[in-house]
Amino acid sequence: MVHQVNSQPSKMAFVGVEKMIELVKSKGTEALLMELCDYIEQDFRRWELFDKSPRYASHSPDGVIELMPTSDQQKFSFKYVNGHPKNTKRGLQTVTAFGVLSDVESGYPILLSEMTLLTALRTAATSALMAKYLVPKDARSMAMIGCGAQSEFQVLAFHTLLGINQIRLFDVDSDAAIKCQKNLQSSLQKADINIVISDSAQGAISGADIITTCTADKKNATILTSGMIDEGVHINAIGGDCPGKTELAPALLQRANVFIEYTPQTRIEGDIQQLPDDFPVTEMHQVINGKKPGRTNDNELTIFDGVGFAIEDFSALRYVYHLAHSLNKVDYIDLIMQPENPRDLFAMLQNNEKEATSSAPHLQQVEGF
Amino acid sequence: MVHQVNSQPSKMAFVGVEKMIELVKSKGTEALLMELCDYIEQDFRRWELFDKSPRYASHSPDGVIELMPTSDQQKFSFKYVNGHPKNTKRGLQTVTAFGVLSDVESGYPILLSEMTLLTALRTAATSALMAKYLVPKDARSMAMIGCGAQSEFQVLAFHTLLGINQIRLFDVDSDAAIKCQKNLQSSLQKADINIVISDSAQGAISGADIITTCTADKKNATILTSGMIDEGVHINAIGGDCPGKTELAPALLQRANVFIEYTPQTRIEGDIQQLPDDFPVTEMHQVINGKKPGRTNDNELTIFDGVGFAIEDFSALRYVYHLAHSLNKVDYIDLIMQPENPRDLFAMLQNNEKEATSSAPHLQQVEGF
Repeated sequence: MVHQVNSQPSKMAFVGVEKMIELVKSKGTEALLMELCDYIEQDFRRWELFDKSPRYASHSPDGVIELMPTSDQQKFSFKYVNGHPKNTKRGLQTVTAFGVLSDVESGYPILLSEMTLLTALRTAATSALMAKYLVPKDARSMAMIGCGAQSEFQVLAFHTLLGINQIRLFDVDSDAAIKCQKNLQSSLQKADINIVISDSAQGAISGADIITTCTADKKNATILTSGMIDEGVHINAIGGDCPGKTELAPALLQRANVFIEYTPQTRIEGDIQQLPDDFPVTEMHQVINGKKPGRTNDNELTIFDGVGFAIEDFSALRYVYHLAHSLNKVDYIDLIMQPENPRDLFAMLQNNEKEATSSAPHLQQVEGF
Repeated sequence: MVHQVNSQPSKMAFVGVEKMIELVKSKGTEALLMELCDYIEQDFRRWELFDKSPRYASHSPDGVIELMPTSDQQKFSFKYVNGHPKNTKRGLQTVTAFGVLSDVESGYPILLSEMTLLTALRTAATSALMAKYLVPKDARSMAMIGCGAQSEFQVLAFHTLLGINQIRLFDVDSDAAIKCQKNLQSSLQKADINIVISDSAQGAISGADIITTCTADKKNATILTSGMIDEGVHINAIGGDCPGKTELAPALLQRANVFIEYTPQTRIEGDIQQLPDDFPVTEMHQVINGKKPGRTNDNELTIFDGVGFAIEDFSALRYVYHLAHSLNKVDYIDLIMQPENPRDLFAMLQNNEKEATSSAPHLQQVEGF
C-alpha cells in the first residue's frame, strides 16, 4: 500500500536545534535579524487583527512555565517558555523555549520549532525595531549592561539595523563581559565596530546614546538610577520582564517617555510594575502605525520597557517557516496521525493498516507564506 | 570535544505516531487501558494538588484550538488540541492533539507525545473509570450511539474494565456502525462479546444498562430525550463537550444525578450548559475519594457529563513516559538547546562549538516515575 498524500496541514515541519543552527548559519545572523525585524514590524502593523491575552503562567518556588498563544485568524501560534534563574548553577539554561505554528482553518499544526535560539534572535530584533523609532538622531554608541545569553544578539541587532558601532560592555561577572566581547569580535571581524569592556555600569553608560539593560536576577534590582542618566538617551530595558524582576529606578521611569508592547501584560511584568496603573505609556504598535509619535526631539529621554510579547513569537515562527522553505531545508515530524478514514482512528492499531496510515515524514516542498 | 552529559531534563523523550502505535501494540490495547485507568484514578485521588483552570480556547468560524495546562507541582503538562467538524469533508480529522510533560523544578520539557490516539485512549479509560462508580450492579449491556473515531475505544474500555459484553451500535451513518463492528470483532476475536448493529437509537438503547453517546455535530442536538430513558440506566455522555454542542434533552438531565469532572469547565462545555448555573452536580474526584456517593441504588438514573479535563491528559502523558521507559522504547528529540555554558548561547552559532553544544539525541535510559 502507498502512503496517502494529504493536503498541507497533515505534514508538520520540524526545526530542531541542529536545523535552527543550520538555518541561521545559512542565512547569516545579520541578514536574518534584518528579515526577522521586517516580519515583526509587519505584524505590529496588523496589530488589531490579533487575539491578544496576557500569557498563561504556572509559577513554582524556583521559576515559571509559560504558554504564550496568539492568532491573526489565519495562523495560530504559541510558545512554551520557562524561566528558572537557579538553573545555571546545575549547568542548565535559565530560559528554554519551543513553539508551534498552526493553520486556523483546519486546526492542524504546521511547524514545531526550537525557540531558545529563536527567542534570543526575536528579542534582539524587537529591541532594534523599537529603537528605530526611539533613538536619538545619529546615535552611534551603546552601553550593554548585563552580558548573558542575550547580550551578543542585542549588540548584533543594533549594529546591523541601526549602525551602532561603539559598544561598551559591563557585567558584574567580568568573565561574562569577556565572553561577550570575544564572541562579538569573532563574529564581526570585518566590521567597523569598537567593543570595549567597562569596569562599572557608570563607566559603560557615560556618554552613550543608547543603554541596553539585560540582567538576570529575579528581584527588584536598581541597575540604573535617575541620577545616572542624562537627557537625550534611549534606554532599551529588557531584563525587567516578570513580577518582582525590575531594573530601573521608579524616578527614572517617571522622568521618561515610556514605550511598551501590550499594556495589560507590561503593567504586570515590566519595569512599570513599580508605578501606578495610570502611569502614561505608549504602545509601540501605535508608533509603528503612525498614530502616536516616537522620539520627537534630541533632548527627550525614551525608555522601551520590553517584556516580550506573543505576537513577536508568532512573527518569528512565521519567519522560520518561510526561511526553512525558501532555503529548501524542511524536515517533517511524525507527530500528527493521519488515518486514511478520519472516523477510523482504531484502524491505526490494526496490523494491515499500519503502513498506509502513518504520517511518517514526507520530504516534500510546501508553499511558504 | 565530547558531548556534555547533562542531568535528565536536557533530554526530551519523543513519542511520535509510529512510536505510539508501537507502544500500544507492544502493551496490548486492553492492558494499556487498564493501566491508564489506574493512572487517571491515582491523579483524581490527588485532585487537590493540581493547578486547575478552564482550557485556553482560540475560536474561529470553523473550529477551535485549545491549550490545556495543569501541574501537580512536580510535573507540568499541557495538551494542544483542535476541534474542526468540517475537517472530515477534506479527509482530515476533526480532532488532532499532541502534548508535553515537563519537570517543574527546572522548567525543562521531558516528553513530547502525539496525543490523537492517546486522547482516544484516555477518554475511553476516563469513561470506564467513572462508570465503575456509576453503573448499575451486574451491568452487562451498552448502547453505543455514534460510531466515530472514539467508539471502538469506548467499547473496548467498558468491556475490559467492567466486563460489558452485550453491545448495540447505532450511527445515522450505517457505514460508521459497520466499521465499528468490524474493528471490534477483529480486535476481540477470542472474547465473549456480542456486537450488533441497531437501526435506530431507540432500538439500541432499549433495555441497555449503559448508554454511551458520542456524536460529532457541533450543534445543540437531542440524541436522547427524557421519554426514551428508563430508570436505573447509566448514561456516559461524552459528545457534548463545547459551547453549542450538546446531546441530551434538558429534561433528561433534570431527572438524573449528574456527575462531572470540573465544574467551572463543564458548566461552559458540558451538556449542563443548557441548565442554570446552580443545577446540582457532583465532581467525580469527590466520588473517587469517598467524599460523595456514586450510584446508591438500582433505580437511580446516573449521567456522566464528560468533557475531558487537563488532569486526564497529565495522567496519560505521565503513563506514556513510564510505558516508553518500561518497554525500553525511548526516542529523543533535538528540541532543547544545551549550550556548554548556559550564558553563552551565541557560541551555538560559532563553527568550532557546534559539535560540543548540540542537544542531539542521547539514546540512554532515563528513570521513569
